[in-house]
Amino acid sequence: MKAGPSQDEIRRHNLGTLLRHVHIGGSVSRAVLADRMGLNRSTILGLVSELASVDLVREELPRDTGKAGRPSLVVRPESDRVYVLAFDVGVDRLTAARIGLGGVFLDRKETRTHSDRRGAREMAEVLAGLARHMVDTAPEATVCVGVGAAVRGLVRQPDGLVRAAPYIDWHDEDFGADLSRRLSLGLPVSVGNEASLGALAEHLRGSGADCQDIVYLHGDIGIGGGVITGGQLLLGDSGYGAEVGHMVVNPRGGRRCGCGAHGCLEAEAGERALLQAAQRDPSTAGREAVRAVVEAADRGDVTARAALQDIGDWLGIGVATLVNILNPRTVIFGGTLREVFLASAAQIRSRVNSHALAACRQDLRLRVGELGDDAVLIGAAELAFSAILANPMETLARADT
Amino acid sequence: MKAGPSQDEIRRHNLGTLLRHVHIGGSVSRAVLADRMGLNRSTILGLVSELASVDLVREELPRDTGKAGRPSLVVRPESDRVYVLAFDVGVDRLTAARIGLGGVFLDRKETRTHSDRRGAREMAEVLAGLARHMVDTAPEATVCVGVGAAVRGLVRQPDGLVRAAPYIDWHDEDFGADLSRRLSLGLPVSVGNEASLGALAEHLRGSGADCQDIVYLHGDIGIGGGVITGGQLLLGDSGYGAEVGHMVVNPRGGRRCGCGAHGCLEAEAGERALLQAAQRDPSTAGREAVRAVVEAADRGDVTARAALQDIGDWLGIGVATLVNILNPRTVIFGGTLREVFLASAAQIRSRVNSHALAACRQDLRLRVGELGDDAVLIGAAELAFSAILANPMETLARADT
Repeated sequence: MKAGPSQDEIRRHNLGTLLRHVHIGGSVSRAVLADRMGLNRSTILGLVSELASVDLVREELPRDTGKAGRPSLVVRPESDRVYVLAFDVGVDRLTAARIGLGGVFLDRKETRTHSDRRGAREMAEVLAGLARHMVDTAPEATVCVGVGAAVRGLVRQPDGLVRAAPYIDWHDEDFGADLSRRLSLGLPVSVGNEASLGALAEHLRGSGADCQDIVYLHGDIGIGGGVITGGQLLLGDSGYGAEVGHMVVNPRGGRRCGCGAHGCLEAEAGERALLQAAQRDPSTAGREAVRAVVEAADRGDVTARAALQDIGDWLGIGVATLVNILNPRTVIFGGTLREVFLASAAQIRSRVNSHALAACRQDLRLRVGELGDDAVLIGAAELAFSAILANPMETLARADT
Repeated sequence: MKAGPSQDEIRRHNLGTLLRHVHIGGSVSRAVLADRMGLNRSTILGLVSELASVDLVREELPRDTGKAGRPSLVVRPESDRVYVLAFDVGVDRLTAARIGLGGVFLDRKETRTHSDRRGAREMAEVLAGLARHMVDTAPEATVCVGVGAAVRGLVRQPDGLVRAAPYIDWHDEDFGADLSRRLSLGLPVSVGNEASLGALAEHLRGSGADCQDIVYLHGDIGIGGGVITGGQLLLGDSGYGAEVGHMVVNPRGGRRCGCGAHGCLEAEAGERALLQAAQRDPSTAGREAVRAVVEAADRGDVTARAALQDIGDWLGIGVATLVNILNPRTVIFGGTLREVFLASAAQIRSRVNSHALAACRQDLRLRVGELGDDAVLIGAAELAFSAILANPMETLARADT
């Protein structure tokens, strides 16, 4: 238990908090900032001036307010001054983006991976290549202030070692350090689990922006999970928390899971289980295969309907357990679980109603992700923005040198 | 997102943090406090002097240090100056305690409840009676600075309404407010779930004192749970989090649970399930009945052994799911699950090994609670101490008037 902060630390905290407000909330007046931060207007003026002096924010007239009279100035983030690089290592594709303050996508590149070139080094080199081009073509006055990467696997915190990423067969890869070296930007690469970053993104900018307790389920061959509790990402002792795909829902007689156990949620309700239940080839797993089952069910295909009902059953049981353990306000379905949820929501809700405690589910909302497939990339960008939001002036000064 | 604290808030925080260090850690030198709090020695001296001026701490020579030379003074909490009242509403007994700063039990009373007098009002009156006697016989210079109560049920936060306490048949009881009126001490009564308070106690003073991520399982007819993640109690959106007894472990063909669902952990591995599996009368559930099964197994009783193995199986599956979702460092078994764990640890570990991800269980420890049956009461006391540890001078001044 540490002592309270020094005056310097408070100033840094206040600058960072103000920057975070405009980064997440967009244009906002000084009066609203004063109210939200609990500071008086002259202190807010000082903070805004300091951030504006280094072009992190700008004050300007708001777009048409629809009100008569002279409108107040609003403070908005300068998306051209600083940016971050965000990477998403998917199962079959690699994505890189250059994202400005305020969460603006400034550039974006994607490439499909080849099944024979999935080593961590090969992938880091491909991503670094995409990034180099984006950095080289960025306007001259703009600087990179952070780098974040999402990986489908177990990522140790705080050091970001990728302990295991089964679908691309990585083990104990120091991917962040390697990527950082290849980028040569003098910046560390923060690495996070894809679903945890999706949860963070939906919490900050999506379906979970209005609450502090969220469970995010991400379908993508496997089932990944991210949990926000009391406004904080649940990491656990070593960063491996929220592996909801490996909740044991069917311990006696359940299907064998990729992890070696039987009856995991992922084994009973993942893409492969859906395809098997729909009597299709499980090795074709992926968005298109999931969509094909959903479309077949929409057309009245009995096997596809039964398959979605069965998967909805298991998902509902899994969600009920998560609701009883975590008491979230919102459960968000992302990745290919978005389609599955839309097609089997009734079944999922029915199981949640029969297995979750009445008090725990009273205010519960089941939703699809608002950010769609970009959730993971946006989460990686938010990870990368952490440094400048914690300490704007010094992070910027370091990036400028 | 709020601005950083004011100078007054920092002073309050530092006084509270220092008091918390001696409250939890006991006697400690100013040099160690300076190191732990990250403050210089003269600031520590000022904080200690202010707390000593109102008799919350005292400086004294340490007990025999075993070292030569003049020993440094140590700062210790004054357990005679302030105390809290802690209450535990058990299934078959009511407990009240007067607990001094530093966590010292100063007085303790217990009474059995009668099955026909379990209404919230009746129980509040019995507890208030026990407390009145303790307050009246307390030394004159000592004051009560907080009251906490533990209830086996769903407690809404932050207001403490008891939404449901099935084993004593309470529904939507404003128990804290009622108890506060009956006590007439001018203090609110903070109410918490029994297992969450047990988790808090074991985290601060027991088996989980050395880590920030804990799952506490409390056996007591049902199975209650408390979760500490990143050093914070997991409450969820409305305070109902950590209802681990209602994880769905056996959804197809599982036993009916008191909550109305089938296959909950509590239904498969609670005291009643153990007694049924051991071919004993489940209505006799309680510590003695659990001990009798464990002792029979120790003597070689085949049915009792098989029953403990079966229960250990379900507990292991439940713990595996918790380990995958929460990645705790320590899982603690308290209440009657202490005995069950000791008798079926091998079975539990085997299931955890087969169902939890290797990375998630790598540093995992399974332990019994160090605080025994007092964990819940100690947790209620810590809840009651929150006010004075957040703001020592004003809380004390208010209590003294």
